[in-house]
Formats: sequence, C-alpha cells, structure tokens
Amino acid sequence: MHIAILTTGGTIEKTYNETDGSLRNVASILDDILRRLRLTGLTIRHVPVMSKDSLDMTEADRETILAAVQAALPTEDAVLVIHGTDTLNLTGERLHAGLPNLDKPVVLTGAMRPYEFRDSDALQNVTEALLACRVMPPGVYAVMHNQALKFPGVVKDRERMTLRSHKP
Amino acid sequence: MHIAILTTGGTIEKTYNETDGSLRNVASILDDILRRLRLTGLTIRHVPVMSKDSLDMTEADRETILAAVQAALPTEDAVLVIHGTDTLNLTGERLHAGLPNLDKPVVLTGAMRPYEFRDSDALQNVTEALLACRVMPPGVYAVMHNQALKFPGVVKDRERMTLRSHKP
Amino acid sequence: MHIAILTTGGTIEKTYNETDGSLRNVASILDDILRRLRLTGLTIRHVPVMSKDSLDMTEADRETILAAVQAALPTEDAVLVIHGTDTLNLTGERLHAGLPNLDKPVVLTGAMRPYEFRDSDALQNVTEALLACRVMPPGVYAVMHNQALKFPGVVKDRERMTLRSHKP
Amino acid sequence: MHIAILTTGGTIEKTYNETDGSLRNVASILDDILRRLRLTGLTIRHVPVMSKDSLDMTEADRETILAAVQAALPTEDAVLVIHGTDTLNLTGERLHAGLPNLDKPVVLTGAMRPYEFRDSDALQNVTEALLACRVMPPGVYAVMHNQALKFPGVVKDRERMTLRSHKP
Repeated sequence: MHIAILTTGGTIEKTYNETDGSLRNVASILDDILRRLRLTGLTIRHVPVMSKDSLDMTEADRETILAAVQAALPTEDAVLVIHGTDTLNLTGERLHAGLPNLDKPVVLTGAMRPYEFRDSDALQNVTEALLACRVMPPGVYAVMHNQALKFPGVVKDRERMTLRSHKP
Repeated sequence: MHIAILTTGGTIEKTYNETDGSLRNVASILDDILRRLRLTGLTIRHVPVMSKDSLDMTEADRETILAAVQAALPTEDAVLVIHGTDTLNLTGERLHAGLPNLDKPVVLTGAMRPYEFRDSDALQNVTEALLACRVMPPGVYAVMHNQALKFPGVVKDRERMTLRSHKP
Repeated sequence: MHIAILTTGGTIEKTYNETDGSLRNVASILDDILRRLRLTGLTIRHVPVMSKDSLDMTEADRETILAAVQAALPTEDAVLVIHGTDTLNLTGERLHAGLPNLDKPVVLTGAMRPYEFRDSDALQNVTEALLACRVMPPGVYAVMHNQALKFPGVVKDRERMTLRSHKP
Repeated sequence: MHIAILTTGGTIEKTYNETDGSLRNVASILDDILRRLRLTGLTIRHVPVMSKDSLDMTEADRETILAAVQAALPTEDAVLVIHGTDTLNLTGERLHAGLPNLDKPVVLTGAMRPYEFRDSDALQNVTEALLACRVMPPGVYAVMHNQALKFPGVVKDRERMTLRSHKP
C-alpha cells in the first residue's frame, strides 16, 4: 500500500516562539507523528505543498493543492492532505469538484489544537486519516474526531469545534 | 452512533507492580484512553466481560465473549472487543463462525505493548478500531497498526509483532 | 516540611484558545504538575495571588507579591513563587530588598514555554524549585534550568532563554 | 560546572519485551532523559559502570562503583550515580565509608518505576539529583521524591515506596 501525504500548513504545525510568546507555523511536524505510529505494510511519500494558515489560503492555493493531488494519484493507492481546519471544507469541495472520475480515496485531515500541545487532536486525526486511506471506498473525505465525512456537503461546526455533514 | 466496548484483558492493560517488579493485568485503562480522544457523536457503553491474559483464555472464555457480543449487537451500531493479541485471532474466528447473519461491524483490537508504556500502540489501535466501528461494512475485523483485517483468515505475525491476513 | 506556593501567572500557565488561535493565561495548571510528582513528607498550601503576564506587572503588583510572601513565611518552612520569566528577576530583587532578616528559602521559578506544550520546561523547573525549597539555606533564589541563582544579581539571559547571575 | 553520571542499571532502565511480555534491563535510557531537560552551563560525562538489577549486586560490584566514583571525582565538580533503589542505600553507605575526605557532592538516585512508563518517577528523580549536584555541600546523598538524604543513615521505606533517613 503506497500513499502520499501532502502538507499545506495549518494549526497542526503551529508552535510557540519563546522569544516573543507568539504562535507560528513551522516546518511540518509530520515526521514526529509518523514515528509514533506502527504502520504495517504502508509506504509513505511526503510532499510538502505549502505551509500556510488556512485562513490565508486563496483560490489559487486551492488550485495548487488540487494539482498536487492530481500529480500524486497515479502512483499512489490513496492521498492524504494535511490542512488547516478553518477552510479544510472549502479545499475538500474544490478537490471533489476537480476529481470527477476519482477511483481512490483522497482524505483531508487537520487539528483544532497544535500538535505540540499535550492535548492536541493531531495524533488522533492523523491516525484516523491513515486508516481511512486504507479502508474507504473512492471519494473525497474529511476525517477527524472519529468521523469520515464524504464530500460534497462538509461544513465546519464552530460550536463543537469539529467538522460535520451539511445535512445531519 | 452507539457502540459497546467489551473489555476482556490482555497486554493493553498490564501494569507494573512497584513492590515486586512484575507486570499484572489490572482494572481496564479504557477510560483513560477514551478521555484523550475527541469522538463526535459517538455514544459508548463499556461492558467489562473478563480480565484475562489472552494466553490463558479457554474455549469457554471465547463462548462467553461470543455471548456478550450477541447480547450487545441488538442495541448498538457496532461492537468493539478489546482483547489480548496472543489469541485475538482465535476469538475473531469464533465470533465470525458464531455470527452468521451479522449486519454490523464487530471489531477486535489490542496492543503489543501495555498502555502504561510511553511508546505503547494501545492509543493508536483503539483510535483506529473506533473509526473502523464507524466506517466498515458488516463483518468481523481485527484492527491495529493501520490494518483492518477481515475474518476468517487472520493470523498473528510474530516476526513483525502484528496481525496479518492468512493469504497475503 | 510545609511550603506555600504562590501563583502569579506567567508563561507557565498560558494555553491555546481553539476558537481564535491565540494564547491566554488561564487558571493555574499547578495542580496538574503536582499530581505528577512524588513529594515525600511535603505539605503544600496553594495561594493564588494574581494571574498576570509578567510583562504587565507593575510596582504595585510586586508589593502585593511581597506582602503575600511576608504573610506566608511565619507558618511555612519555605515559600515558592511561580512567576513569569520576563520580569521574574525584578520581583526577586524586590523580595530580596523587602525581606531583610529572611531565615528561610524563598524560591522563584517559571517557564520559558507553557506547561501545555509537550516540550515545556515547566515540570523541570517546578521539580527543581520544590527541591530548592527543601535544601537551600535562607535567601531569595531564582531556580530553573538546573540553576539556583541567589538574589541580588540575577538577570534574564535572552540569548540563551534562561536566567543567569549578573557577575558570571 | 562539570559532572560525571555513572550508570549501574536498576528499575529506571527496565523495559518491556514484546515477544514474551517480560521486563528486562537494557541499554541506559539516560540520554533520553537528558534530552528532555534544559541544563544551563552543565557539562555531563556519561560513564557506564554496569547494568545490573540492584538486588543482584554483590560487595564486589559496590567496590567497582566506589572505584568508578573515585576515578571520576578529580576531574568533576560532582558525581551522580544512577542505581537500583532496592540496594541504593547499601551502595551509598559504602561510598560514604570509602570517601573519607570528600570535598564535593556525590549523589545517588534511581526510580521506583521504569522510565518507559508514563507515570515513572525517573525524570523527577534525575532532575532533582542534577540540581543536588549543583547546590549541595560536600557529602554523599540519596536524592529522590523531593528529598536529599545525607549518608550515613538512609534506609528504604518499603511501605511508602521511597527512601528515608534512619533517624526521622
């Protein structure tokens, strides 16, 4: 089983700057997460696409991500996109629209709380997303918090700090 | 979404006895694991069935587990069984044989390394198993280490310290 | 052995606000730290004094902290003050000047990185400060990063992100 | 400030053997602990002396440890000995008797629970012991659980799973 993981930035990789007390996006913490998991028979290729707060992502950024997914699909069994949760659903809709004959799972995940925090949801969400890459039928999915939500129709649920399907 | 989690013991809940330096099975650490996860829209009922090293499990124990799964299925959307990895595949085969008209997922998981160790695979496996409860079609599965293996035909892979399908 | 721990805020207790991605000071995380330590024969009384970023502390705030230390000293064997590292040395100098006949250790500590981060120095610094309360001769000390620095003469070493003595 | 850390084995470095479920002593986990600490101005030299369960230590082993401490003292400001807690006090008494003109601190520490467990006391004890190396007056000490106990006169307190002074 071969998958590509495309990183685009987002809350998951924010870290704390000791000099001025701010939070920044930094080099992806993906390697650290993957080292903690046992992934039998899984070959992973990491493709850094961008490192952006998802609130700053433009339509052009989404086209870049779509192109990166299209480039990865032919040689992989599934594609995982790590993405900021604020606009993850917009990118998911774009991928869904732009991949009409998709015959593999494309999974988006992210985190509400940066990985570097003790109680981050990043490890859980990446664990779930990697299993989804393995078991879901073809389609574009948002996977986090014990949910695998199929596009189109995924919205951010700000009240409960997660994603949900548009039609409950 | 409602699931029952049946605990039966196993490596996952072994802990260290400071007085004599041995390892013991103790009260399930399941609650601690669940507290660390964000499980949107999931209602969990915990059913303690037994607390045994899976190497000590008898055929009678497997019948007890089968009966507990049968008792839980009517009111749940899926059933998760936490089980020692040494004989998890034997219990999985028994469940598969004993649940001929299964219309929901029944998922077995465990850990190669007790949860109380820093580098345990318990959190990963339970995270994966809970997602499998949500997304897998009806059937009996062993879920761990980024794998969802369908019964019948799951064996322990001692060399790589995981489970695998009988026919690769 | 009886000690009082006075909390005043600072980086150590900053946390991440999932709704807007900012960092805030919140209710002290001291209890969580203390639960992780084995403190034989130590009785701790927690005195919340304020919850302020130490960059916002005024001279009046330092007088408040001095008064709280003076109030605690008669009934305790030592006093520990948890304080933001940005102005910890200023408060230490004020305590040193305001406690001329001190016959017990008064220890200040803090963290460069909030406790809620995996790689925080908070647990280390509190562990060290609690031992310093037990073993140091009378005086006011800044304790962190394997150092016990005696006031007067402690300055912040911004380059190495720690505190140091004025005269090396 | 230069110190030598002598490792001798003990509970602190026991780990879990996934193949047969037993606990073993393995290569020292000291490096991992030290990576988690911020140790300003401290230069550490690691001297592996032996790797033994302290219950199996003989008088000859204690002579070996004494010789290693004597060899390290001339070039160091302090010596830290990591030792199993079961007979740590016996080794401490031997060091005390064998170092009559000691002009530096010699600190012994260990752990009641292996480092690889989430709730191990190893990190706390090493943190405390490293500060003790820096601040204690000359003498041989057992340092753990917020205590710095001076030899002679340290005994194991089995009821409370720690060490204590013979005369309270």
